[in-house]
Amino acid sequence: MEFVSETRIRLYDTDAAGFLFYGSQFRIAHEALENFLEHLGLPIAGIIRGREILFPVVHAEADYRVPLAVGDRLTVRVGVRAIGDRSFTIGYRLLLADGRDAGSAVTVHAALDAATGTAQALPEGLRAALAPYVQPGG
Amino acid sequence: MEFVSETRIRLYDTDAAGFLFYGSQFRIAHEALENFLEHLGLPIAGIIRGREILFPVVHAEADYRVPLAVGDRLTVRVGVRAIGDRSFTIGYRLLLADGRDAGSAVTVHAALDAATGTAQALPEGLRAALAPYVQPGG
Amino acid sequence: MEFVSETRIRLYDTDAAGFLFYGSQFRIAHEALENFLEHLGLPIAGIIRGREILFPVVHAEADYRVPLAVGDRLTVRVGVRAIGDRSFTIGYRLLLADGRDAGSAVTVHAALDAATGTAQALPEGLRAALAPYVQPGG
Amino acid sequence: MEFVSETRIRLYDTDAAGFLFYGSQFRIAHEALENFLEHLGLPIAGIIRGREILFPVVHAEADYRVPLAVGDRLTVRVGVRAIGDRSFTIGYRLLLADGRDAGSAVTVHAALDAATGTAQALPEGLRAALAPYVQPGG
Repeated sequence: MEFVSETRIRLYDTDAAGFLFYGSQFRIAHEALENFLEHLGLPIAGIIRGREILFPVVHAEADYRVPLAVGDRLTVRVGVRAIGDRSFTIGYRLLLADGRDAGSAVTVHAALDAATGTAQALPEGLRAALAPYVQPGG
Repeated sequence: MEFVSETRIRLYDTDAAGFLFYGSQFRIAHEALENFLEHLGLPIAGIIRGREILFPVVHAEADYRVPLAVGDRLTVRVGVRAIGDRSFTIGYRLLLADGRDAGSAVTVHAALDAATGTAQALPEGLRAALAPYVQPGG
Repeated sequence: MEFVSETRIRLYDTDAAGFLFYGSQFRIAHEALENFLEHLGLPIAGIIRGREILFPVVHAEADYRVPLAVGDRLTVRVGVRAIGDRSFTIGYRLLLADGRDAGSAVTVHAALDAATGTAQALPEGLRAALAPYVQPGG
Repeated sequence: MEFVSETRIRLYDTDAAGFLFYGSQFRIAHEALENFLEHLGLPIAGIIRGREILFPVVHAEADYRVPLAVGDRLTVRVGVRAIGDRSFTIGYRLLLADGRDAGSAVTVHAALDAATGTAQALPEGLRAALAPYVQPGG
């Protein structure tokens, strides 16, 4: 199963070379992640306010296959690449309106105790919510 | 008449003080402006690609009335404050889901010939498209 | 007296129109403000960590006089426009290397009790530190 | 050989979790890259203005080892990981003032003809300028 989020390339995502600034692909991925967490019933506002356990990114990567221009409509397909004891990995596929694969991203999130900064086991509720989105073949 | 655009405060809009970084309110305003221009049939992609006439911001301002947190839903109400010979002024009102006035922004756009950088008369099509959105009392 | 901060226009500050995205001028102003506060012996890290009193922006504005391109070197001259009972106002002048006035910004900061969110008197230490930078004529 | 660039974590780089927003690490990497290109005598302003050959990022990744807070001083050590026929790879190591390894980033840049968007051989001047910075062991 994948979660689907729709977005646009905005002027502030582009740079003077005329296309998406590569760092903005992570803005777009995070927008999709926030929509995904909300859909799972685990909105990021609650995580941030709760201040018990945080899920910072410990690794991120992205591939860029098509130069994206302001106004381009993107479908971001969000899936789970892996669920570990103390971390989880999210995958993002960016598709243009005509179906072309525009790029992708991956973010690895560690579970940390907000007070001590030490690694934590993933909460069972999060683990159960992510499970249906694990992609075959990772 | 006002144009209405819906958005959310995203994690990347906030800073370590816990709320919206003030500069991000202009990101949110521009997202609403791009939606407005698309609604008018004058999408920004066409303006940027056309490279005949550009509408750079020559003045911007914003007021902040409520500290905005990640996940907050905003309605951005876009209106036209003024249409001049060579410029136009857009107003944005940011309303929270409970109706509270969270803040506002204003952007003044000059019409410039893209090749020479000199001031231009506003194109008639743009003037006509903006006219119904002029707010009484500016 | 003015505080002087040096910076560059970076690729991520520009957009597909080829010049500075107007919202990025506030990023540049805030960089200069952080440098100014550090120079005053009141680094922003201490303010954020202290969590006693915060100084959120309640009004911001900017003017844009020259289209700024990636690589342009800017001198940002920071001064104090006003010191009120519960707020202060910072002014920023952006000068190009050849002395041209590229634009300006203003930010009005309210002093808020971080726990309750209520207005506070400006701390005396901050008031004293800002005083020498008040600009004649505001 | 490595190129060294100094920077700070700014308030707009952080988010409401209290530390660096992961996407901002790419802003910081790009700032260092622009400084590196300037040092090589190949400033990005010239590349963008020249519009003959562009070097878009086709892959990016980053690791995060220490939560970075506003005000933290970083040394970014820039090296070349690989020089290919039509691409080059830049590595960035982020070190805190106390020498701790805060994280890293990698960007892979393809050489593209700006007019046609097709892959190009790396210009000889760029290849020669990058060569002294190739890191043993990649």
